[in-house]
Amino acid sequence: MENNKIHTVVISGLGQTSVGEHWDISLRELAFFAIEKALVNNRGGYPQALYLANMLAPALSHQSHLATMVADFSGLRGIEATTIEASGASGGMAFRQGYMAVASGLVDSVIVAGVEKLTEQTSVNVNSAFATNTDSEYEADHGLTPTSQAALLMKRYIYEYDVPDFAFSGFPVVAHANGASNKNAMFQRAIKPESYQRAGFVSEPLNMFDVAPYADGAAAVILTRAELVADLPEIPTVSVSGSSAVIDTLALHDRQNPIVFNAAKESIAKVYAQSGLGHSDIDLFELFDAYSIFGALSLEAAGFSEAGKGWELAQDGRINLDGEIPISTFGGLKARGYPGGATGVYQIVEAATQLMGLAEENQVKGAKNALVQSLGGPASTAVTHILSQIER
Amino acid sequence: MENNKIHTVVISGLGQTSVGEHWDISLRELAFFAIEKALVNNRGGYPQALYLANMLAPALSHQSHLATMVADFSGLRGIEATTIEASGASGGMAFRQGYMAVASGLVDSVIVAGVEKLTEQTSVNVNSAFATNTDSEYEADHGLTPTSQAALLMKRYIYEYDVPDFAFSGFPVVAHANGASNKNAMFQRAIKPESYQRAGFVSEPLNMFDVAPYADGAAAVILTRAELVADLPEIPTVSVSGSSAVIDTLALHDRQNPIVFNAAKESIAKVYAQSGLGHSDIDLFELFDAYSIFGALSLEAAGFSEAGKGWELAQDGRINLDGEIPISTFGGLKARGYPGGATGVYQIVEAATQLMGLAEENQVKGAKNALVQSLGGPASTAVTHILSQIER
Repeated sequence: MENNKIHTVVISGLGQTSVGEHWDISLRELAFFAIEKALVNNRGGYPQALYLANMLAPALSHQSHLATMVADFSGLRGIEATTIEASGASGGMAFRQGYMAVASGLVDSVIVAGVEKLTEQTSVNVNSAFATNTDSEYEADHGLTPTSQAALLMKRYIYEYDVPDFAFSGFPVVAHANGASNKNAMFQRAIKPESYQRAGFVSEPLNMFDVAPYADGAAAVILTRAELVADLPEIPTVSVSGSSAVIDTLALHDRQNPIVFNAAKESIAKVYAQSGLGHSDIDLFELFDAYSIFGALSLEAAGFSEAGKGWELAQDGRINLDGEIPISTFGGLKARGYPGGATGVYQIVEAATQLMGLAEENQVKGAKNALVQSLGGPASTAVTHILSQIER
Repeated sequence: MENNKIHTVVISGLGQTSVGEHWDISLRELAFFAIEKALVNNRGGYPQALYLANMLAPALSHQSHLATMVADFSGLRGIEATTIEASGASGGMAFRQGYMAVASGLVDSVIVAGVEKLTEQTSVNVNSAFATNTDSEYEADHGLTPTSQAALLMKRYIYEYDVPDFAFSGFPVVAHANGASNKNAMFQRAIKPESYQRAGFVSEPLNMFDVAPYADGAAAVILTRAELVADLPEIPTVSVSGSSAVIDTLALHDRQNPIVFNAAKESIAKVYAQSGLGHSDIDLFELFDAYSIFGALSLEAAGFSEAGKGWELAQDGRINLDGEIPISTFGGLKARGYPGGATGVYQIVEAATQLMGLAEENQVKGAKNALVQSLGGPASTAVTHILSQIER
């Protein structure tokens, strides 16, 4: 009702580090490298605020108050700096805070960054830290981890919809195909369906290829009010045409139907309403494929498939770069890697790169609108954005 | 420059729990109790978002993804929920995010809450967790804690300004006098200057009364766009007339002059500029007295005293409830208690209670404008608000 007062917000700078194991780079340096790149190619205002997404630095690096550290180390003293945490949706949520700050007119320009270092740890440490994103007292304390939770979801999905063996293989196969040409991806090689079929279980029925790898990485985006950015003739300008966040129950056991991602669904309905776009307008979907079951449930939540059929899109090539709804266009969490709270910012950077026509081998031809969704837990938190080319 | 487009944001609901040791109440229950109170007395819209301030639940309670948990447990399913962390300034920063969200027109109404549980821990655990708010690699790893850092600041201040013995005693004496009539305070008893003089050192020259106690507590505020709130004839409406956040270096050793709180100063200059008010318009100042040296430095940063003289205001009765600039009117961090990330929300609740004329024995007569400042670290992050009675 008040949309007429909201400023148009555009993306004026992008930065990312490669995703992988960065044992030689500290947390603050990693964040700085992404921020520096975004500042160097920024064509908007100088940022007045940093919104920093991070999930696990307090637990794994003994560092909280992180946004102030990163802004300070990046030479952005005197601005404001806020750390945002919403589990796996942290990056999307930080982007939403930055969007709202600029949309309000209170600031002209902000930088949204995400950073995470997960690989210099024992797997016990990392899995314990990730388990704090579930309902600790009712889930983690009884042994549940996000991965075993995803296995339960997948088992239930297979049971309810009676899907065939290896039904989910399309998700990692497509992700790895796209990651192969992304020089920032953790895994830059294609895999065959047969590799999926031979893979050992991590938590039955979830096999090794159904699980995105925890990784180190940092990404950054600069957001500016549209009127402050000069158009570049050769590169389209990308605006934020929809933004929303919605929660579900934190614990999976509190849901009536665990294999419907309701928050993801509602969050997408909100961005469609805000942008005036529908799913036929969406040219690519950066979804949150932390597990291949999440890929299926996210496609279903977004209305690209009916319930129980999301996996078919992945089998039929319809999620490929030249398919009807390309997903994970730079490899997704599965092949680009899953650097915790930075992930949502990577998703935004990748979607914006597509709409700017700069995706090279990974380019989705003629992409004008991208749907980007980050999830915290099994869609306990869903944050969704639509990025759009501005018409000229 | 775009202020004409910013919606007026008012406080439509307040809630708090008592501050102290809540061993019988879980983290989620504690947050819920404050939220419930704010919802019960809310005269604005139903909140569409929760901004939750928390510092240490990931480290001390093995719970991240906390805002979603608290919203879920509070029956606020389907809204959006974001956890904000900015060390001791978390509560102020969450309030600023809520303010910006409503000011933008993107949402009508939000709830800002803070929750922290610190007392069910060994002091080693709590001090280690608080130390993650410093620059871990360069400060905490070498043994620095926030308390020993404050002792260094105090020592430097005493040396630079050659202040007399027991110069800081006015801060805890006034805080405890005000806390004595606050039924939510952790310490509801006055102390005498002689008690201060007899107190043992915690970290020389900081004695027991110079240090605010870590505590458990939760507070909540509902913010609504002004036009959606009906005026009540008998209780003044309180608006947010200024909001800002500014960072300094995270580490104390990176500053040219450690005994000037530059970020606090700049943040206050910004809220004065936004509101059109100056320090002669301020009727009370909820400052961040985690240590009595912070009281002196905050008064100096706000312009109520010249550098090196802040402690004199406390000796002369000028910070008392009937003094020229009342501070810590419900006991401040020292006597009300310091419940980590919830603290900034308590400060807002208390300032709003003053401006609504509901402070009873703690009332500052005729209070129209309140300055509220939360600090993360030694003003590494400073978040400042001015709350004002709306003229009718």
